[in-house]
Amino acid sequence: MKILIENIDIITCDYNSEDIIKNAFLGIEGGYISFISRTKNEEFKPDYVINGKNKILMPGLVNAHTHCAMTILRNCADDVSLHEWLFNNIFPAEAKMEPEDVYWGSLLGIAEMIKSGTTTFADMYLHMDEVARAVSDTGIRANLSKSPWKFDASKKRLANQMSDCFEYYKKWNNSANGRIKVSVEIHSVYLFDEESLCSSAQIAKELDARIHIHMLETLREREESIEKYGMSPVEICLKTGVLDVPVIAAHCVHLSKKDIEIIKEKGVNVVHNPSSNLKLGSGIARVPELLSKGINVSLGTDGAASNNNLNIIEEIHLTAMIHKGVNMDPTCINAYECLKMATVNSSKALGLEREIGYIKEGMKADVILFDMNKTHICPINNPISAIAYCVQGSDVDTVIIDGNIVMEKGQLTTIDEEKVKYEVKRISKKIFNL
Amino acid sequence: MKILIENIDIITCDYNSEDIIKNAFLGIEGGYISFISRTKNEEFKPDYVINGKNKILMPGLVNAHTHCAMTILRNCADDVSLHEWLFNNIFPAEAKMEPEDVYWGSLLGIAEMIKSGTTTFADMYLHMDEVARAVSDTGIRANLSKSPWKFDASKKRLANQMSDCFEYYKKWNNSANGRIKVSVEIHSVYLFDEESLCSSAQIAKELDARIHIHMLETLREREESIEKYGMSPVEICLKTGVLDVPVIAAHCVHLSKKDIEIIKEKGVNVVHNPSSNLKLGSGIARVPELLSKGINVSLGTDGAASNNNLNIIEEIHLTAMIHKGVNMDPTCINAYECLKMATVNSSKALGLEREIGYIKEGMKADVILFDMNKTHICPINNPISAIAYCVQGSDVDTVIIDGNIVMEKGQLTTIDEEKVKYEVKRISKKIFNL
Repeated sequence: MKILIENIDIITCDYNSEDIIKNAFLGIEGGYISFISRTKNEEFKPDYVINGKNKILMPGLVNAHTHCAMTILRNCADDVSLHEWLFNNIFPAEAKMEPEDVYWGSLLGIAEMIKSGTTTFADMYLHMDEVARAVSDTGIRANLSKSPWKFDASKKRLANQMSDCFEYYKKWNNSANGRIKVSVEIHSVYLFDEESLCSSAQIAKELDARIHIHMLETLREREESIEKYGMSPVEICLKTGVLDVPVIAAHCVHLSKKDIEIIKEKGVNVVHNPSSNLKLGSGIARVPELLSKGINVSLGTDGAASNNNLNIIEEIHLTAMIHKGVNMDPTCINAYECLKMATVNSSKALGLEREIGYIKEGMKADVILFDMNKTHICPINNPISAIAYCVQGSDVDTVIIDGNIVMEKGQLTTIDEEKVKYEVKRISKKIFNL
Repeated sequence: MKILIENIDIITCDYNSEDIIKNAFLGIEGGYISFISRTKNEEFKPDYVINGKNKILMPGLVNAHTHCAMTILRNCADDVSLHEWLFNNIFPAEAKMEPEDVYWGSLLGIAEMIKSGTTTFADMYLHMDEVARAVSDTGIRANLSKSPWKFDASKKRLANQMSDCFEYYKKWNNSANGRIKVSVEIHSVYLFDEESLCSSAQIAKELDARIHIHMLETLREREESIEKYGMSPVEICLKTGVLDVPVIAAHCVHLSKKDIEIIKEKGVNVVHNPSSNLKLGSGIARVPELLSKGINVSLGTDGAASNNNLNIIEEIHLTAMIHKGVNMDPTCINAYECLKMATVNSSKALGLEREIGYIKEGMKADVILFDMNKTHICPINNPISAIAYCVQGSDVDTVIIDGNIVMEKGQLTTIDEEKVKYEVKRISKKIFNL
């Protein structure tokens, strides 16, 4: 399908071009952005035209760390410690989840993400075949990680599922018209041990895949790592070869000076999850410091049980505010940096920076349009500030992924929302014995 | 008008009753909540019936500190220091504001507030007659403060306008069917001096009015106060009699141990403005500590130029998250406390706790209904968490103030939004010479 977006203001999120292109024409063909011009291209015959008046176009947002199907557990355990939350609430609930539950939970999460402007997400969860099926069915783009080792929470031990990991990769990597990429999951150094870290790094190398890991989310994780391995989580990952492949490292709240040096040296991609880190009382990652050192910092929502939503716009908003407050310095991070964290930086974390994350001719057509004709955004004295500080998830009007319109005027085209909500309510009741 | 809300789940925010009343009938008559019952009251003949299915009813939210007409300056100066922001951006822009500009800016702010569930706000700004006119026209409830001294930013001096203050009080207090209450504004101890603090306290006593003040927003304010008065802002307010009347004290970020004791002793109402304090790099008020000492802590948005919106739901959300993160303790504040801060605590700050702020028979009918049938709220495993962590401003469906429906299904009944946006865009262009 050939789509033309007329008279549109574009926030590019491109480090190498102008910030804003005003009143442009943007053409989409064969899944790619085929042109951006100041005047109408009369040779381009679109099948579909979108009027850009009172709208802003941005690259689709990239949620670099989530557990999509945890929507099922939304609001199930709040205002308790991470340990209490994870071991006494989440793990027991997850033990009751059947594969099909994860399919429906993922559909709900994907619906929520598309509605708030996310076009790509990086997921780590159980029953990952079901997540892939949901991604494939809905048209969203995803990096799905599969663990070579399975942690059995009830027995507190790891079981080798190396062959499952290989098979998952073979089955799903580059499937769904290339929208699915597969990574290797290492849940964390606290659930893994030295042997499983080494073998997981090895399999990632063999597959030429990324590793997606929880890293230094809590102070307790640091302390337990030093007790268990005699070194920090970052150091044991370095030792076991985990950092020799591209890594998506979620959280990174409690990094030492040495950890930061290693992360910079090895090009580890940090995913900042402000809502989840705040809500679980984990702490606040030192994002301005990491950015100033040239480390790639991206944004994630984490799962809906610790956030409790999958709206990456809120994470942009929070990131643009909390670091200023904590550092008592309103200049330590700016609105545009935060928009870039959720777009171009996140795409780089996922290894997709040649395909998505900023607006340029030749990039894949993952774009979103905000309806800016809203009372709470008026007047738009600065479009970048308006996105970072004013818009709500519900201001996303249109979402295009891989050149396909998956939402228009707030209506999803690939997901039956009422059906999905019905199924997830049923599943949630089953799991919590209601 | 007699309104019946059927089959509704109610979050009461009442310290002295149950948290949630399920599947109730709530009747409104003569501007008051006339009954709440578990079964249908056949004797009540409503003029209008609202179906409460998939909705949650709460007391209308109370924004205890804002500068409503600053919507005109939304996004005009971001990511700069408070001093740079105030003296080099805001004051010069405000100097160009004409009375009618403040009317339109207030209308826009009121529209935004109603749409995100606010039914009462406490305002402090210039051309306050225009704010009163906007409140009167729109049906919202407000505490409007008028300054007995006018700070001339260009000449950096105060001018006595004591008689204006008296007249304003006479003209507007208890007007608009009692929806308007007038307080005395003391901008801050840094713009005022000892004489103006004393005389302002005196006039507030004479009028039996509250005082609305900015208090210890920044560390600089503390330092300058010690230089200017030889004591902290709280201490000079104590000395000059300011704390002998009920006080609405916005911010309170940099309180000493002694300040906290004085605030507790004198029953000062603290207004926490997390977005503004974060965004301007002012710091983070120690809210859990203040609450634990029994101090009344309420919530405010501050103005749209430092937030950059007037959505108090975001402030609830932020409050429920940031203190957990900063204190690395997810149990230090809970979701329900945060809902109460924006309802019953804020109503107490404004001296309206016998009229509004929680749901009970005999209270004024300021109530809001959320549409909970949304993908990003599903499943509702806990209604209080769902409000604190999941809902967006746009999930507010219906707003009733003083027994009148001012919004239904997201449509305002008393404000022409398109007209207001048009006027504010015009005014903003004029002020910034665009």
